[in-house]
Amino acid sequence: MEIKKKKILITNDDGIHAKGLAELIDIAREFGEVLVVAPHTSRSGMSKAITVDLPVRLKKYEETANFTSYSCTGTPVDCVKLAFHQLLDRTPDIVISGINHGSNSSVNIHYSGTMGAVIEGCIHEVPSVGFSLCDHLADADFEPSKKYFKRIIAETLRNGLPKGTCLNVNAPKGEPKGVAVRRQGHGRWVEEFERRTDPHNEDYFWITGYYQNLDNGSDDTDNHALAEGYISIVPILVDMTNHHAIETIKKWHFNEE
Amino acid sequence: MEIKKKKILITNDDGIHAKGLAELIDIAREFGEVLVVAPHTSRSGMSKAITVDLPVRLKKYEETANFTSYSCTGTPVDCVKLAFHQLLDRTPDIVISGINHGSNSSVNIHYSGTMGAVIEGCIHEVPSVGFSLCDHLADADFEPSKKYFKRIIAETLRNGLPKGTCLNVNAPKGEPKGVAVRRQGHGRWVEEFERRTDPHNEDYFWITGYYQNLDNGSDDTDNHALAEGYISIVPILVDMTNHHAIETIKKWHFNEE
Repeated sequence: MEIKKKKILITNDDGIHAKGLAELIDIAREFGEVLVVAPHTSRSGMSKAITVDLPVRLKKYEETANFTSYSCTGTPVDCVKLAFHQLLDRTPDIVISGINHGSNSSVNIHYSGTMGAVIEGCIHEVPSVGFSLCDHLADADFEPSKKYFKRIIAETLRNGLPKGTCLNVNAPKGEPKGVAVRRQGHGRWVEEFERRTDPHNEDYFWITGYYQNLDNGSDDTDNHALAEGYISIVPILVDMTNHHAIETIKKWHFNEE
Repeated sequence: MEIKKKKILITNDDGIHAKGLAELIDIAREFGEVLVVAPHTSRSGMSKAITVDLPVRLKKYEETANFTSYSCTGTPVDCVKLAFHQLLDRTPDIVISGINHGSNSSVNIHYSGTMGAVIEGCIHEVPSVGFSLCDHLADADFEPSKKYFKRIIAETLRNGLPKGTCLNVNAPKGEPKGVAVRRQGHGRWVEEFERRTDPHNEDYFWITGYYQNLDNGSDDTDNHALAEGYISIVPILVDMTNHHAIETIKKWHFNEE
C-alpha cells in the first residue's frame, strides 16, 4: 500500500517516558511527520479531565527529522488541546494515543486518559484511535501487536471514521489471533478500598479492586474478543445520548403543578 | 404525591462549600435520608478521573437527623466509589450530583466532574441525575429551577431509568419556561490558551476559550432548549459504542498480510 506523508499527533497517559509511547512513535513514523505532546509523568485514570485551576507548561523534549516531542504538565486532554492550539501548523490527519500499559476495554474507557485524549481528537473532528495492551508492566512486550496496530492506523487513514466516532483498540498479551470489531463490554469495577492509618493517626484510602464482567458470556464484546486472543476494536461515540429514551422520558410529569 | 423515605447519595464537583450543593441537599432532604460525599475543594473539569497515584482521605463534615456529609480529597468519581464501598449500608435509591455552577450541556458532559459522578452512579446501576445551572457565579440564584429539579428527582424515583442510562439536566438562568427532553448538542470548545511568562522567564499557559455550536439551528438539542428558556434533560448512555459502525469497520482489511 502506498502511503502519502501524513501529519500525526500522538499522546498517551503513561507519560513521555513510557515504553508504550516509544513503540507507538515507532509505528507512526512510517506514515509521515509526527508531533508528540505527552504528560511529563503518569496521568493514568485522568479520563477527560482538563486543568482549569492551574497553569500548564510545555517543554520541548526531542527534535529530529519529521519528529518533534513535548512534555506537558497537564492531562492527556490538555496535551491534545495545546497541540491543536499552540503547536500544530495544520489539522493533523490522525490523533493516536497510547500504547497504554494496561487494558482500556469495556467500562475502562470512562476512566482512561488514553481514551480521553482520543475522544478529544474526535471532538476536534480528526480521526482518532487509542491503543492499549492488556499488560500494565513497564517493560510489557508490544511487539506481537505492532503489525496489527500499523494496519489499523493505515485503514483509519484510508477510510476515515464515521462522524463523531473514534476507535478504542485493545490487544491481548502475546501473539494476537487477529482483529475483531466489537461492542463495549458491560461490567464495572468492584472497589476494595484499602484503609490505612498514617503516622499522625489519620485514616487514608488506596483505591484498588477487580473488574466484574456483567455480560454473562455474550460473544460480541471487546472483553470476549480479548479473552479469545483477538485484538478488539470498539467504535466509540462522542454523542452519549440515549436517543431511544428521549420519547419515554418526554412522557414524565415535569411541567404540571 | 406520596413519597416513601428514600436513601439519597449526593456529590458535586464544585466542592463541599458550594452554594449549589447546599441547594441540592435542601431539595433532596424532602425525599428521605441523605449522604453527601463531596470534594473538599473545587474539582471542576475532573471528568471521570480517579485518583490512583495518591491516597484519598474522607472527613466527616456535618451530621444531623437523616443527614450525614463528608468531604473527600479525591475526585467526584472517587467520592461516589468511596460512598458505595465505605459509607453506605445499602444501595441508595438515587445518586444526584450538583447543582453545578455553570453549564454541562452538549460536549461539556465529557469534561464535567458533576456528570462524571453521575455516570459512576449509573455504572453502579443506581438511577443517577446531574443538575447544572447556566450561571458559574458563586452566588448564582438556584431558586427558580428548584421546583423543577424536585420533580425530576421525584419522577426518576417513581419511574426508574432505562438500563445503563443516566440524566444530564441543565437549567437556564432565571425562571424556566418548563422542561424539555433533548439530545446532546453538537459542538466543541475553541481553545484560546493564554501564554504568560513567569518571574523565572519560563512560559506557562492558562486554558480559556469559547463554545462553538455546530448544530446549525437544530431545535432538538439541549443547547437549543436552554436558549429558548427551558430546562434541558438529556438521557446519557454508559455504553459509548457506535453500534451502527461495527459492520462498516468489520469490512476493513486488518487480518490479511
